[in-house]
Amino acid sequence: MARLLITNAKALVGTHPASTKRIPGRRMATLPLIENGWLLIEEGRISDMGTMSDLPNELDRAHLPRIDASGRYVLPGWCDPHTHTVFAAPREGEFVDRIKGLSYQEIAARGGGILNSAAKLRAMSEEDLFEQAKARLEGTIRQGTVAVEIKSGYGLTAESELKMLRVVKRLQAALPIPIKATLLAAHALPPEYAEDRAAYIDLIVNELIPRVKAEGLADHVDTFCETNYFTVAEMERVLAAGATLGLPGKVHVNQFTSIGGVEAAVRQGALSVDHLEVMEPADLDALVGSGTIPTLLPSCSFFLRIPYGPARELMERDLPLALATDHNPGSTPSGNMNLVLSLACIHLRMLPEEAINAMTLNGAAAMGLENEVGSLTVGKRANIIITRPVPSLAFLPYAFGTDHIDTVLIDGAPFRTGEVLA
Amino acid sequence: MARLLITNAKALVGTHPASTKRIPGRRMATLPLIENGWLLIEEGRISDMGTMSDLPNELDRAHLPRIDASGRYVLPGWCDPHTHTVFAAPREGEFVDRIKGLSYQEIAARGGGILNSAAKLRAMSEEDLFEQAKARLEGTIRQGTVAVEIKSGYGLTAESELKMLRVVKRLQAALPIPIKATLLAAHALPPEYAEDRAAYIDLIVNELIPRVKAEGLADHVDTFCETNYFTVAEMERVLAAGATLGLPGKVHVNQFTSIGGVEAAVRQGALSVDHLEVMEPADLDALVGSGTIPTLLPSCSFFLRIPYGPARELMERDLPLALATDHNPGSTPSGNMNLVLSLACIHLRMLPEEAINAMTLNGAAAMGLENEVGSLTVGKRANIIITRPVPSLAFLPYAFGTDHIDTVLIDGAPFRTGEVLA
Repeated sequence: MARLLITNAKALVGTHPASTKRIPGRRMATLPLIENGWLLIEEGRISDMGTMSDLPNELDRAHLPRIDASGRYVLPGWCDPHTHTVFAAPREGEFVDRIKGLSYQEIAARGGGILNSAAKLRAMSEEDLFEQAKARLEGTIRQGTVAVEIKSGYGLTAESELKMLRVVKRLQAALPIPIKATLLAAHALPPEYAEDRAAYIDLIVNELIPRVKAEGLADHVDTFCETNYFTVAEMERVLAAGATLGLPGKVHVNQFTSIGGVEAAVRQGALSVDHLEVMEPADLDALVGSGTIPTLLPSCSFFLRIPYGPARELMERDLPLALATDHNPGSTPSGNMNLVLSLACIHLRMLPEEAINAMTLNGAAAMGLENEVGSLTVGKRANIIITRPVPSLAFLPYAFGTDHIDTVLIDGAPFRTGEVLA
Repeated sequence: MARLLITNAKALVGTHPASTKRIPGRRMATLPLIENGWLLIEEGRISDMGTMSDLPNELDRAHLPRIDASGRYVLPGWCDPHTHTVFAAPREGEFVDRIKGLSYQEIAARGGGILNSAAKLRAMSEEDLFEQAKARLEGTIRQGTVAVEIKSGYGLTAESELKMLRVVKRLQAALPIPIKATLLAAHALPPEYAEDRAAYIDLIVNELIPRVKAEGLADHVDTFCETNYFTVAEMERVLAAGATLGLPGKVHVNQFTSIGGVEAAVRQGALSVDHLEVMEPADLDALVGSGTIPTLLPSCSFFLRIPYGPARELMERDLPLALATDHNPGSTPSGNMNLVLSLACIHLRMLPEEAINAMTLNGAAAMGLENEVGSLTVGKRANIIITRPVPSLAFLPYAFGTDHIDTVLIDGAPFRTGEVLA
């Protein structure tokens, strides 16, 4: 489809200027929009837009494919900068164990948790992993996700970590959305290295990172910096090795305990610090003036019944907060960003405009895609959500558990087709 | 469709004997099922079932319309015994006010809340109310709800309460699912009666209840028994008047405070006590040995961020716990029972089997429909969910925010058609 004209949108939402690379917290309540708008897509990118009263005559008269979006919002699609969407098997048995009273940490101590996923992943073929992850991702694209980051981290051997990243590479080729890959070899200590932690970090730093860089298999490096997982010093070694080769860090910190990971990640120039459910004032202060994007994962808090991250405190410090799903089989078996939107408003006390900014432009920035997606901006990819008729933007998070999306366009082509295109 | 045969179901779930009218709490973890099952529907009702190895030859060879449910679960559809699905307008503006820091009670004190809904409802035509509610209900049927209770309570004048119940009567005629109607005139005190509370209760008891009985407009009566709404004594007057005419109570009690409403409702023979977020030991004890069904509404707790009801304590007392959505524009703008299932397992600490029993047979019992729906039992209406292929029953609540339903049958006829019937 070379050209496509969307007309009569109730509003074009998230029409940030091309110069806006991220939205600082105190400005996140402002979501620029064009009421009663039209938007032109050419060759898969947004080429022009405006209000209907200014629709150029020649466009109006041109016989273009056309979507009448009357009563509907047109939004940049959701950008999900933290997922573990490549995995071998769901873990609903552990979910039932938790209902019976075991904690996430107790289940991990019994050989469940990440090590359970690692054992299953090592046994599964690359082809099966790819097919399963592809189906899962197609499901989330239908739910409005138009850009995503995916981590390794269930391999925990060089071979299996590379297998996961090759699956991500195949997904990049097979699916039309931008996908960023992150090496998360330091997700849990493999049992083989229980007596020699340093040797596993050596493997990551000296072998894995150079190899994924050379083969173009990853854009970022990650570490689960947490009590009983990896120390701050171990994370710093990984981040430093990644930074040297141009692979900025995106790290798991402060999920259960505050051990200094945020400050260390900032020191190592991490692109994002993710989770942040347990934040001390010093952790919050460490982010001020940094280039590091705090990323909250409210679906994980919802599912594990752990505290929600301090969204308002982060925004009050003028930080460019992002939101993500954390889609994974242990702590967040959901890749639904619409539910993240509801959780952000209900449980993080974010205004709908703040949450939408966090899930679009700031989410894009948290994976280095802010020049490609995340706003309705001329020149960006036409990765776009058209809603069903809804009375207001606030209705999207408010009426939770209902699917408000009609159509999802990726590069201007329908991925999910609702009534506006039926 | 006179006959329909479902074959190869991964399991037929909820195959309770016809003698099972409700499931006591300590037995709710047992969910009877038939693995690798077949089920026959004749004239809209379940007429026979069994395991595939015992499928009668004549059935196997008969040229019946047939659904191959390989890899899929077949379940009784969800029974939702507490909703306010007839309303005039969403209230997402109040949702934003709450994000900004106002409490539900503060918003009500400013003229928002139920009185806001009442003002809008009084101004809307019966036809518009009907069309909106019908669309809303069709949405929830597609989400698997196959029987529902709907309350009045946004009228708050005799005329407007009757208008709401006439809308429910039209919904009963227009939609194929069983719908029970409840008179909730005592939902909030109309401003006109601020100086004479007793006069409003007189109106309900002396005029409205006899009239809805005579016109067949309601099956139950309800009262919002709560600090700043209606007193225990006022609720008792309403319940006694209803009981005299054969309209058992289904009441709102203990949502924000414990003021003795549970014990009083039991004394008045109420069919159900609903909400129960704030329960003292005496409230729990009052239910033991009664015929009153405790009904929890976890989506309301989720949305208002108030405590979740004490599901485990209720089940430990062997009470037949039911679950419902509370679908309404103020405190629960969602009629999605699948999300209730996830909330029940995650936040009420119910096992998947317990939650499914609470959402099917016990939910049916909480609206007097236990002989019609709520289980896969010969003779009951074929109001049935067929899932997508899923690895286990526990996967349904675990993978939250994803639609696991393929097809919904109402009286054996497809209401929502997925790939098994496409």
